[in-house]
Amino acid sequence: MTRVVVDVMPKPEILDPQGKAVTGSLQRLGYQGLTVRQGKRFEITVEGELTDERIDQIRDAAEKLLANTVIESFDVRVEES
Amino acid sequence: MTRVVVDVMPKPEILDPQGKAVTGSLQRLGYQGLTVRQGKRFEITVEGELTDERIDQIRDAAEKLLANTVIESFDVRVEES
Repeated sequence: MTRVVVDVMPKPEILDPQGKAVTGSLQRLGYQGLTVRQGKRFEITVEGELTDERIDQIRDAAEKLLANTVIESFDVRVEES
Repeated sequence: MTRVVVDVMPKPEILDPQGKAVTGSLQRLGYQGLTVRQGKRFEITVEGELTDERIDQIRDAAEKLLANTVIESFDVRVEES
């Protein structure tokens, strides 16, 4: 079983209300000097062999379903286990 | 500016309704053989130098604020830029 990780983050120019809320909470709890942006992490377990074609398919799925590419960027990578 | 990434994932024994929904949607869209678990990714920009003490502080914050350690596990790592 191979694992592919897709990270989805709000684009830099996009406001990130979740990240802003977390940044504010950290400050109130006494953790200073930290700025947070919040995104999503998908861990995908692939049945069978992980071919280049399969990775292209996952990249395609990430673009269509996992990320909203108007406001989010994504990164697909294979994780060695 | 250094960046620290905190990944928060549902623990393996915990049901993951978001991941289940994504897995189902991928299948309906024709992407077979993929099982998805969904978590969160926090990108933390640290002001000033990133000392070991600072990383410990972030680990502490992750445990208290970013992850619900009853149902989620988390991983803190420094990302080279």
